Amino acid sequence: MNSQDSLPNKIINAIQAVAGKEPLGLHEPTFDGNERRYLNECIDTTFVSSVGKFVDKFEADLAEYTGAKYAVAVVNGTSALHISFLLAGVKNDDEVLVPTLTFVATTNAVTYCGAFPHFVDSDEKTLGIDTYKLKQHLLRNTKQKNGLCINKLTGRTIRAIVAVHVFGHPCDINGLLSIAEEFNIMILEDAAESLGSTYNGKHTGTFGFTGALSFNGNKIITCGGGGAILTSDDSVARRAKHITTTAKVPHAWEFIHDEVGYNYRLPNLNAALGCAQMEQLPSKLRAKRNLYARYKSEFSTLTGVSLLAETEKSKSNYWLNTIVLDRDQMHHRNAVLEATNNAGLMTRPVWKLMHELPAFSNCQRMNLETATQLSRRLINIPSSSNIL
Amino acid sequence: MNSQDSLPNKIINAIQAVAGKEPLGLHEPTFDGNERRYLNECIDTTFVSSVGKFVDKFEADLAEYTGAKYAVAVVNGTSALHISFLLAGVKNDDEVLVPTLTFVATTNAVTYCGAFPHFVDSDEKTLGIDTYKLKQHLLRNTKQKNGLCINKLTGRTIRAIVAVHVFGHPCDINGLLSIAEEFNIMILEDAAESLGSTYNGKHTGTFGFTGALSFNGNKIITCGGGGAILTSDDSVARRAKHITTTAKVPHAWEFIHDEVGYNYRLPNLNAALGCAQMEQLPSKLRAKRNLYARYKSEFSTLTGVSLLAETEKSKSNYWLNTIVLDRDQMHHRNAVLEATNNAGLMTRPVWKLMHELPAFSNCQRMNLETATQLSRRLINIPSSSNIL
Repeated sequence: MNSQDSLPNKIINAIQAVAGKEPLGLHEPTFDGNERRYLNECIDTTFVSSVGKFVDKFEADLAEYTGAKYAVAVVNGTSALHISFLLAGVKNDDEVLVPTLTFVATTNAVTYCGAFPHFVDSDEKTLGIDTYKLKQHLLRNTKQKNGLCINKLTGRTIRAIVAVHVFGHPCDINGLLSIAEEFNIMILEDAAESLGSTYNGKHTGTFGFTGALSFNGNKIITCGGGGAILTSDDSVARRAKHITTTAKVPHAWEFIHDEVGYNYRLPNLNAALGCAQMEQLPSKLRAKRNLYARYKSEFSTLTGVSLLAETEKSKSNYWLNTIVLDRDQMHHRNAVLEATNNAGLMTRPVWKLMHELPAFSNCQRMNLETATQLSRRLINIPSSSNIL
Repeated sequence: MNSQDSLPNKIINAIQAVAGKEPLGLHEPTFDGNERRYLNECIDTTFVSSVGKFVDKFEADLAEYTGAKYAVAVVNGTSALHISFLLAGVKNDDEVLVPTLTFVATTNAVTYCGAFPHFVDSDEKTLGIDTYKLKQHLLRNTKQKNGLCINKLTGRTIRAIVAVHVFGHPCDINGLLSIAEEFNIMILEDAAESLGSTYNGKHTGTFGFTGALSFNGNKIITCGGGGAILTSDDSVARRAKHITTTAKVPHAWEFIHDEVGYNYRLPNLNAALGCAQMEQLPSKLRAKRNLYARYKSEFSTLTGVSLLAETEKSKSNYWLNTIVLDRDQMHHRNAVLEATNNAGLMTRPVWKLMHELPAFSNCQRMNLETATQLSRRLINIPSSSNIL
C-alpha cells in the first residue's frame, strides 16, 4: 500500500495537484475585508455586547441573502437548533426524526427539549435523509391520532423531522415536505453547513418551520462563534428573538421576564465580524465552486474513489469537498486518513454516526445500512476558500 | 414632590454633584488598553473561534486573579450556571434554593436541569441570602434521608443552594457553608456580578463547589459576551471543559462524543477582549471604589435614603452602586426612578423578584418579607468606572 499507485498515494497526489504541496487545514477562515474596521468600530462606540447596529445589520443581511423574511442572530448553531425545536413545540417525551449521519449538535439539541432522537437512514447521492426509506418506515411503524403521528412501538408523538444539509449539500427537502404533510410532522432545517446552498433556486433553511445557520470558525463565514434562526413567520421570529434574549418584556427600567428564557443573543462584536464576512460570501462561494471543479477534474481520472457532486435540482456551497470510496475500497479508509494527515493534508471521516454514540445507542432507529456504509466511505478533504 | 427639596430632586442633585450634569448610563464598558490590538491579532492569526491562545490566557488570568485553581471560559454567565448545576448533580425533580432577589439567569439555569427553584429571603445588609431565616426554614421543612436533604412537603431532594453576590456585594458565604454542611446541601456561587469582590480576603466564587462569572457588556469587565466557571477541583475543571465543548473525545480525526454535551465554549475573539479588559481590572476597581466614596459623601447628608456599603468582612467591587430608601420613603421609588431617568441619569430598581414572575409563581418558597420590602427600596445609580 505504500507504492506510488496505492489509493492513499493517488488521493494525496490528486489533492496536491489542485492545492499544492504545503500543509492544508480542512477549512480555514479568511478575513479579506472590513473585519478589522468593524471590530474597531465596536470598541470605538463601546457597543460590543447584547445590542448594537451590527446585530441588526447582520440579521438584515442574512434575511436578504437567504430570502427568509427574518433572521434572528444567536450565539451558535446549536442554540439556533435548540430554540427552533422549542418553538416547534418539541417537548418532553416527544420523538424527533434525525439522520444518524449528522453532527452531534443536531441530536443534542433534541435532548435539550427532553425529547428523544429517532434515527433515520441517509441517501447516498445527497447524504441527506433517504425519503423513500423514511416513508416506508413511517407507514409501518406509526399511526395517526388526533392529528399527530404516533410511534406505535413507544406510544410517543413524532413531532418533527430535522432536514440536515450535510457538508452544504441540499437534501431532498421537497420529498421531506411531502412526508411531513402526509404524516403530520413538522420539518425543521439544520442548515448549519449550507449557507449559500439552494434547492430549486430557493435557499436552504427557508423551506421548513425554521432553518438553523452556524458561523463557527470552520464554516463558510464565521463570527468567531455565531448562529441564526431563519423564518418567514412574523410570530416565530418575534418569539425567537424574545426567548433568546431572556424573555425580557420591554420596559424603561423594570426587569420582567414573562417565561423561561435563554441567554443566546449574539454579541455585537461577533455580529461585526459576521457583517464583514457576509460582504465576502459571494467571492468565497465562487472560490469554493472553483476548487470543487478542479478537484473534480483530478478525481475523475482515479478509480476506486469519486467526488461528491451537487444533484440536478440543487446548488451546493461545497462547504467541505467529500470523496467517496467505492464499496470495494472502503477498507482503505483509515489508510487514506493516515496517509493524507501524515502528508500535512487535513482530512477527516464523517462524524461517528449518532446511533453509535453511547448517549444515543438505545434510541429508536430504522435500518441504517446506507449511513453505516457511507460512514466507512466518506472522507472530507481540504476545502478552504483560499486554496488557489 | 416637584420642589427642589423633594426626595427625587435631592437624589438627582447628589448624583450630579458626584458625576456631573451629562447624561449617564447605568454601567458602561470602557476600553482603554489593548482591546484593538488583541482583536486585530485574532484576525491576523485567523484564530477567532473555538480554540486560540486568548482563551487559554483568559482562563489563566482569571484563575490567577481569583485564586481559583481553574477557570473554564464559557459563552456567558447563564451557561456557567447551567454547567455548574449539571456538574453538581442537579437533575430532574430536584429542588435548588435560590434567592428570590436575583437576576433571572440564576433561576432559569435551575430549570434547564429539570429542577425546581425554591425561593429564599434576603438579608438587608448584604442583599444575599438571609442565613438565619434559611436555617430556620430548613429545620422546619426538611428531613435527612440517606445523606440527602428532603423537602418534607414535596418529597424532593434539595440538592443545592445558590449563593448570589448581588450587585458585587459578597453574601454571608461562611454562614451558607455552615448550613450546607449541616443539611447536606451543595453550595454553588453565582459570582456573575462580583469579579473583584472578596470575603475574608478570599475571592467570591471560590468558596463553593463552583463559582460562575459573567462578562456581559454591563459587567465590570466584558468580553462582549462571556462567562467562566471557577473551581479548584481538577476533575470538575476537566469535566466542565469537556461538557462545554460538545463532550468530544480527543482524536486526530474521529468525532466521538462520550455524553450529551453543550456548545458553550468562549470564542477566541471574545477571550481576546477579555484579556485586554483583565489588564485594566485593578484600575477599574480603584475607580469604582473611588466613585462609591464620593457617592457616600454626598448621600450621607441626605435623609430618607442611604447608600449600600460593604460589610465588615467583605470587600465589594461596587459593581452597581445602590441606594436604599428608608422604609417610610419607599412609596417614592417610582417617582425617584422617573425623575432620575428623565434627568438623563439611568437608574433602575432591583429585578422583579423571582417568585413574582409568571414562570416561577408556583414554586416553593419561604416567607420573603425582606426581599419584598427591598424590592421597593433599592435603586441602582450610575456606576460606570469612567465617571470622573
